[in-house]
Amino acid sequence: MTVFRTELRPTDVPRIEVAADATGFFSQEETAIARELAEEALAHGDASGYHFILAEDSAPPNRGGNSDQLLGFACFGPIPATQGSFDLYWIVIAPAAQRRGLGRRLLKAVEEAVVRQGGWQIYADTSSRPQYAPTRRFYEGTGFEQAALLEHFYAEGDGKVTFHKRLRVADRNR
Amino acid sequence: MTVFRTELRPTDVPRIEVAADATGFFSQEETAIARELAEEALAHGDASGYHFILAEDSAPPNRGGNSDQLLGFACFGPIPATQGSFDLYWIVIAPAAQRRGLGRRLLKAVEEAVVRQGGWQIYADTSSRPQYAPTRRFYEGTGFEQAALLEHFYAEGDGKVTFHKRLRVADRNR
Repeated sequence: MTVFRTELRPTDVPRIEVAADATGFFSQEETAIARELAEEALAHGDASGYHFILAEDSAPPNRGGNSDQLLGFACFGPIPATQGSFDLYWIVIAPAAQRRGLGRRLLKAVEEAVVRQGGWQIYADTSSRPQYAPTRRFYEGTGFEQAALLEHFYAEGDGKVTFHKRLRVADRNR
Repeated sequence: MTVFRTELRPTDVPRIEVAADATGFFSQEETAIARELAEEALAHGDASGYHFILAEDSAPPNRGGNSDQLLGFACFGPIPATQGSFDLYWIVIAPAAQRRGLGRRLLKAVEEAVVRQGGWQIYADTSSRPQYAPTRRFYEGTGFEQAALLEHFYAEGDGKVTFHKRLRVADRNR
């Protein structure tokens, strides 16, 4: 069974980097950033501005589970100097755990956590390169809309697509 | 005479916050961010990712100058995980020093420093609120173009406008 966990442990830091690397989507510089965010969150907690939700198998390895590896993780946080805007920095599903709706469930957990923290909208950046078409389809299929495209942002021919989703929250949160 | 300086001193940190505050443009949370960036740059140098250029009066106070106050400052740096994209985080001219072309000269110094560091394009974010019309005109008048607008990014009715400028650099820098 897949369970979600929000409290980071020191052993999670390398597992987060491994999970990001396993997708084959990210450069070494990018997976190092995921690791740094996890280290920040572990050292400073909520004050770091980075919140993690980890998806893992609840069955221990000797019961046929694979609890040593993360099935996926998300990292999000409030955008400084904004009122209730959150950034979804990372959402990663390990290749072996893909195509089972885990990404949608993880995103839903992120959205609920954002609302609990007083947020009402989420931004998520991804690349315009063909390789990232599944990522863009994921956002388009989960209620996000493309809000901006900065061509050549990451490099020549590699633009930044910013997706945006307004969450349904009571007015008191706004 | 106005001189530019790139090496930060500990006494610059409060002066940077004071200069940002004096414009009346920024919230306390925002000027605190300027201070934090200066502290990071002072503690970790180039490794911080934040570079400052300070504009000050070269005449000492007893010669009619006002060297205790910054005339302005800029803060910029490479955007992580990009190839040659830089962010202009701050460009501030103290009210008493405005309308003399100092902003343009400071921006030119930033652009030259970006090219020296291998950069070829600059992004600058500002607010869509009416109060920031002079800021937007400054960017439009210095070769920037509006590349994106994220409505309600900072708050309801307060969008983020992203300006972009491609610099003229030799192909080897790309």
